[in-house]
Amino acid sequence: MPESPIGVFDSGVGGLTVLKALRELLPGENLIYFGDTARVPYGTKSPSTIIRYSLENARLLESFGVKMVVVACNTSSAHALDILRKEFDFPVVGVVRPGAKLAVALSKSGRIGVIGTEATVSSGAYRKAILSINPFATVFEKACPLFVPLIEEGWIEDEVTEIVAGRYLKELLSVGIDTLVLGCTHYPLIKGILRKVCGEGVRLVDSADAVAREVEGLLPSRSGRTEGKVRILVSDRTERFERIARMIMGDGITIEEVSLEKD
Amino acid sequence: MPESPIGVFDSGVGGLTVLKALRELLPGENLIYFGDTARVPYGTKSPSTIIRYSLENARLLESFGVKMVVVACNTSSAHALDILRKEFDFPVVGVVRPGAKLAVALSKSGRIGVIGTEATVSSGAYRKAILSINPFATVFEKACPLFVPLIEEGWIEDEVTEIVAGRYLKELLSVGIDTLVLGCTHYPLIKGILRKVCGEGVRLVDSADAVAREVEGLLPSRSGRTEGKVRILVSDRTERFERIARMIMGDGITIEEVSLEKD
Repeated sequence: MPESPIGVFDSGVGGLTVLKALRELLPGENLIYFGDTARVPYGTKSPSTIIRYSLENARLLESFGVKMVVVACNTSSAHALDILRKEFDFPVVGVVRPGAKLAVALSKSGRIGVIGTEATVSSGAYRKAILSINPFATVFEKACPLFVPLIEEGWIEDEVTEIVAGRYLKELLSVGIDTLVLGCTHYPLIKGILRKVCGEGVRLVDSADAVAREVEGLLPSRSGRTEGKVRILVSDRTERFERIARMIMGDGITIEEVSLEKD
Repeated sequence: MPESPIGVFDSGVGGLTVLKALRELLPGENLIYFGDTARVPYGTKSPSTIIRYSLENARLLESFGVKMVVVACNTSSAHALDILRKEFDFPVVGVVRPGAKLAVALSKSGRIGVIGTEATVSSGAYRKAILSINPFATVFEKACPLFVPLIEEGWIEDEVTEIVAGRYLKELLSVGIDTLVLGCTHYPLIKGILRKVCGEGVRLVDSADAVAREVEGLLPSRSGRTEGKVRILVSDRTERFERIARMIMGDGITIEEVSLEKD
């Protein structure tokens, strides 16, 4: 009998950085990814809409017999995680808490910056998660809505992206953070620019790595399987998704379109 | 009996520039706008998804008894107009053809540039419309996917937007266009920057104005009513929509959320 896969969903292509981290850390696992490209992005939508979409995505993955679901979307993690956990029997892992835990572990001054989409930042999810682990931390948050479109345009080592990053991060840097959480799964792709803008005094927390380690901790000891299968599903197949997916995952991937429609 | 309204839809907030042009040109008409903010943006989605969404939007407006539908979304106009016209009995007006007509009328050299979203440009809709009016025109197209997020960030008179515009328009300007079609309803909001980057030798075509005149031509002679009502509906109510809507329409507006769900 084939091993049940780990399901991963995101609003679009960004969660593939989490899929990649899982594949690298847990090469024996079967993985199935769903990118809700027909309704992307979630970051500018309202909480009730984000929750509805997240439930539909998890139900789709459930239909593939997953043993666990990773919500590889910070916006969904911030708004829908508790509801998903109530609704399903399998474990549901978000990206917020693993990133928050790693940030608290790395920060010496307790002054932690968080960047993300408008919806993630306005949810205060990272602030709450960080303060629940270290009540003495000070959290500074900043929404960076242009980062996703800039990354999706492919301007990942680019003058414009650097100017935008400088503007977005100015305030966080002026208050003396020593750790910055990349609270959006797209952002690891501009880590180079963020490192340059932040300088050496600030540790960057990549939530994709953090969530992969969280998943590893939830699995029973691994069997000796050689290599798991990776499936990538989308609700709308576009040239844009394929281009960025190859940028993240390499060329050896196939992308399948599935329907979320109920009619 | 109250007069049937003119329906207007867009993927989000950009089509409000068309609503505004209609209100100014036809102040006696009742207008009803629907912004599909739960699924915005359309510009990066596939043709089949864009068509499905457009049909659902027009059906929603039909349920309000509209006498005409204006597709105030270049992406929908480019992909779904013919299908909408087959599906509904009322007239359906797109933004592409009015903009193309005005561009041909204004251009002396026949060298016409078109900027828009990825989906609008890859559809070739403006190229086809312009060439069907003037087969001797030469059309140069360029997708500018960062303009919408920059405008929605409110960076409408901004150094970054100017650098991005300079980069996007460089090629079009180097081939000597004398007319530039703003092939996205958001773009009139950065007309100032576009004018600066293009210089005085290039005429800008605002498709919002062009479509309002097209609608005027389709109406029977106007009655002496004083002022029409304006309703604004969205599929997802967000702070972002309200902020940008007020930027375009002024403060005296109310926004209602409606559901497109079939369940």
